[in-house]
Amino acid sequence: MSQSLFFHPDLSLKNIILPEEESKHLIRVLRKQKGDIIQLMDGKGNLALARIEEDHPKKCLLLITEISLKEKNRNYHFELVIAPTKNMERIEWMLEKCCEIGIDVIHFINCENSERSKLNLERLEKICISAIKQSKQFYLPEIQPLVDFKTFIEKSKSKDSTKLIAWCETNQTETIQSKLSKIENQHLIFMVGPEGDFSNNEINIAKANGFTDVSLGNNILRTETAGLYACVAASQLL
Amino acid sequence: MSQSLFFHPDLSLKNIILPEEESKHLIRVLRKQKGDIIQLMDGKGNLALARIEEDHPKKCLLLITEISLKEKNRNYHFELVIAPTKNMERIEWMLEKCCEIGIDVIHFINCENSERSKLNLERLEKICISAIKQSKQFYLPEIQPLVDFKTFIEKSKSKDSTKLIAWCETNQTETIQSKLSKIENQHLIFMVGPEGDFSNNEINIAKANGFTDVSLGNNILRTETAGLYACVAASQLL
Repeated sequence: MSQSLFFHPDLSLKNIILPEEESKHLIRVLRKQKGDIIQLMDGKGNLALARIEEDHPKKCLLLITEISLKEKNRNYHFELVIAPTKNMERIEWMLEKCCEIGIDVIHFINCENSERSKLNLERLEKICISAIKQSKQFYLPEIQPLVDFKTFIEKSKSKDSTKLIAWCETNQTETIQSKLSKIENQHLIFMVGPEGDFSNNEINIAKANGFTDVSLGNNILRTETAGLYACVAASQLL
Repeated sequence: MSQSLFFHPDLSLKNIILPEEESKHLIRVLRKQKGDIIQLMDGKGNLALARIEEDHPKKCLLLITEISLKEKNRNYHFELVIAPTKNMERIEWMLEKCCEIGIDVIHFINCENSERSKLNLERLEKICISAIKQSKQFYLPEIQPLVDFKTFIEKSKSKDSTKLIAWCETNQTETIQSKLSKIENQHLIFMVGPEGDFSNNEINIAKANGFTDVSLGNNILRTETAGLYACVAASQLL
């Protein structure tokens, strides 16, 4: 099934022309032909059956014949807020894993000690699409563009979520599992800082705006490991 | 501190000659000189102070001046049993993360559907050393060479541990967090199969030899994601 599951953001259309890369994959690699049926998903829960009308290897034309809405297969909401790592591969790998395990939104923040201020959002989206296909999910996580730390804090004020922040030099001993076992809503925003850690100023701002600090255990985790750790914690404990 | 923390497997010696790569790093990159003090660990809990006696960039000579034993900073034992992935980078990344989070032994198994039957153990050990240095731990996980599935099962019989196995098409609905919340000893062996999954025969053999199946949630996780997921679960729930 996963071999012929394709992504298109808008399944409200009757006819769809697949982009060049997907057309090539479908016609040249999978060798599908006119009349064959494939599956399409839009990352918003819709799964469609579509028939190949024109098996053009650069702009394959599809006709949607059936569409159904899939339920989300978990009952919690997890948003990760993270500073991109200098070596972007680290974040890409983490994002793939978070998608497999379950994540709703990823926010990227620019901190005082950040070492990267540019992101290739298109590449990140491709990673997410591939990961949700792989793990048989139908909801695509939202990827937010990079914003300054303070901008994010302002924006998060209105959200009625449990907000946690983790950093290396914290004195906090209460673990994330202890915190998560006590929360009442199933809606978590988890923030983790850059490789050079948050500045004291940033920690103070976060704490003054609804974030509580939390321990991820005795070991010092890398940025992307901390993000993944929180994602697994949410999946196991919410 | 981490910049001048070096690894040597035998700190029972008074004098140590660092291998070429580490000597070069210490003398050429960090520009340490005769008389400078560095830290050494052996991955068995020992942390030593050592003075540079000869600042040779290929075979730096050290004298150990002080040694202390660090306690393990967790009270559970986690062994992961996994089939190497075709693309070895996936396992390497997972191993780095498992080391950061906490793992005692990693076993590699060769299954019916395995796509890789060779491992570079030296490279894997380097990844582990680097990860434990990074996360400020003093115990190096044990890396077991690749053995056949059945050989591993035979070997594991004598171990008095909780033994769990995860695979994709399981009907098991009891989650790993539920299982782990009930176990009495803090000693877990967790087994995850190759990308092509375990064969029915392998699952039957495992179950007949003390392994219980467990669910990792609704999503289909990749091999290396499943291993990491179990590692985080052990760290949070044992």
